[in-house]
Amino acid sequence: MEKILVFGHKNPDTDTITSAIAYAYLKNEIGVVAEPVRLGEINGETQYVLEHFNVEAPRLIEKAGDEVDKVILVDHNERQQSVNDIEDVRIMEVIDHHRISNFETSEPVYFRAEPVGCTATILKKLYKENNVAIPKGMAGLMLSAIISDSLLFKSPTCTEEDIQAARELAELAEVDVEEYGLAMLKAGADLSEKTIAQLISLDSKVFEMGDHRVEIAQVNAIDPADVLSLQQDIEGMLDLVIAEKKLSVFILAVTDILNSNSTIIVRGAQSSAVEKAYNLSLENNTALLEGVVSRKKQIVPILTETFKEL
Amino acid sequence: MEKILVFGHKNPDTDTITSAIAYAYLKNEIGVVAEPVRLGEINGETQYVLEHFNVEAPRLIEKAGDEVDKVILVDHNERQQSVNDIEDVRIMEVIDHHRISNFETSEPVYFRAEPVGCTATILKKLYKENNVAIPKGMAGLMLSAIISDSLLFKSPTCTEEDIQAARELAELAEVDVEEYGLAMLKAGADLSEKTIAQLISLDSKVFEMGDHRVEIAQVNAIDPADVLSLQQDIEGMLDLVIAEKKLSVFILAVTDILNSNSTIIVRGAQSSAVEKAYNLSLENNTALLEGVVSRKKQIVPILTETFKEL
Repeated sequence: MEKILVFGHKNPDTDTITSAIAYAYLKNEIGVVAEPVRLGEINGETQYVLEHFNVEAPRLIEKAGDEVDKVILVDHNERQQSVNDIEDVRIMEVIDHHRISNFETSEPVYFRAEPVGCTATILKKLYKENNVAIPKGMAGLMLSAIISDSLLFKSPTCTEEDIQAARELAELAEVDVEEYGLAMLKAGADLSEKTIAQLISLDSKVFEMGDHRVEIAQVNAIDPADVLSLQQDIEGMLDLVIAEKKLSVFILAVTDILNSNSTIIVRGAQSSAVEKAYNLSLENNTALLEGVVSRKKQIVPILTETFKEL
Repeated sequence: MEKILVFGHKNPDTDTITSAIAYAYLKNEIGVVAEPVRLGEINGETQYVLEHFNVEAPRLIEKAGDEVDKVILVDHNERQQSVNDIEDVRIMEVIDHHRISNFETSEPVYFRAEPVGCTATILKKLYKENNVAIPKGMAGLMLSAIISDSLLFKSPTCTEEDIQAARELAELAEVDVEEYGLAMLKAGADLSEKTIAQLISLDSKVFEMGDHRVEIAQVNAIDPADVLSLQQDIEGMLDLVIAEKKLSVFILAVTDILNSNSTIIVRGAQSSAVEKAYNLSLENNTALLEGVVSRKKQIVPILTETFKEL
């Protein structure tokens, strides 16, 4: 049988990596030859997760079309966030929890998007719908994805379904959610050995908004001041990326995971659109967004609407 | 609670009408205030179905934004096939079995598309997933949708899942599938009282393909010669629609439901794209496509690829 590659978005986070692994496992169990792969480096948080549950990291790929005709996307659907040669392969399925944009097919596909906090929450349902038991390791990976995406259930993206799924997965994974979750988030928030280039690309996504290209990176921190002290160097690097990718604006959101707010650093010709979206004035290219921790729910929609009206 | 409108595509067919009714019913059962509505006239086949199971036709709407903020789309996702003011309302969910195109949201949505033969087959699963019992009337409507979309299981779009769902629904609906199905299809294929304008709009959809707008109408017939004898008048009407909607091509597929093939009548400046797609020469603007009965699977994909390469 022809192999299918399963992968999440570029600049992979824990949900993207673990969902690729957990969905490929499910596919294998129901007789489909599927291999999880990744489109970028494993971050510190995901590394912690894989080591904890003793699961190997997926193989890194640059292109998909060289080795397969068919792929499955998890945790994303927008073309510019996917593998570079996405136009050369056939997308068989999408399992996602983001907005739907810049995606189209000429034939019917299996597309399962739900407005929950995490792709893993949907995967857990798919295991059940396909009558496949969830082994301890896969439960641990999926639980980790939910903890990561919901910042231990504190993000406004987190739904009752995510919490319920996490509870059941924690039992199968045999971990204490609070204790394990905090250790995992801390592993991800350890920025001490990151270069500036790594900081702004670790969890970064490009969006098409109206006629504009906007990049939004997010860094979770225990102490945001550590990151903000590097503001001058960060801005220099953002300006380079803006020129290279022809971006209208680049936003780096430094999220305080203990106090649930984000300080944004904004660069680019359309910075004023960010001021308009949040009805504030940037000072020294920054602003504190109280209560904002979710790019998907609290940044992308409001900015998209603002850019469409520009 | 705020009401949500549920509707299928323009020029509604049996799957679109019955799916709106059956999904609104399911939503009501789980405590959501939802009303099924329609975007066009009920065709003869659907009329037969509604009368047989004694269910009222949904209300006709021209616009959604005047009365609600939120909508659910069934059996379609492409904007140009939806309500005219689709940009003014928020799409909460999509349940569909077509290609995904010309669709985007700024926020995450529930999007459930599966490559099965009929939206009703997916709805049947959603009843189960939500633990809602399917009453006789709803079972009859959903069964009718599967029979309609699959031409009594003869279309290449028909999957094992559709057949299994139909079998279970037939039991709940207390009908003999073959007998009921043939009577229903015949009611839809009775074209004797149709005007030319009705013939070409009864089951017609507009598609964006590359930079081209293409309209593809399909008419099911017991005796295709009845329709083809009207070719001259039909072509005149197609030309009017092409000019009005700025179409690159208009294809009318007259489908012989007993012999499983289609005769196409093709008009428009890009008629040669159809010749290229099927590697044939149109004669007197027509051609017989052996074995072709599915617009979704046997016409749209191949034409889309051809138009993208133009």
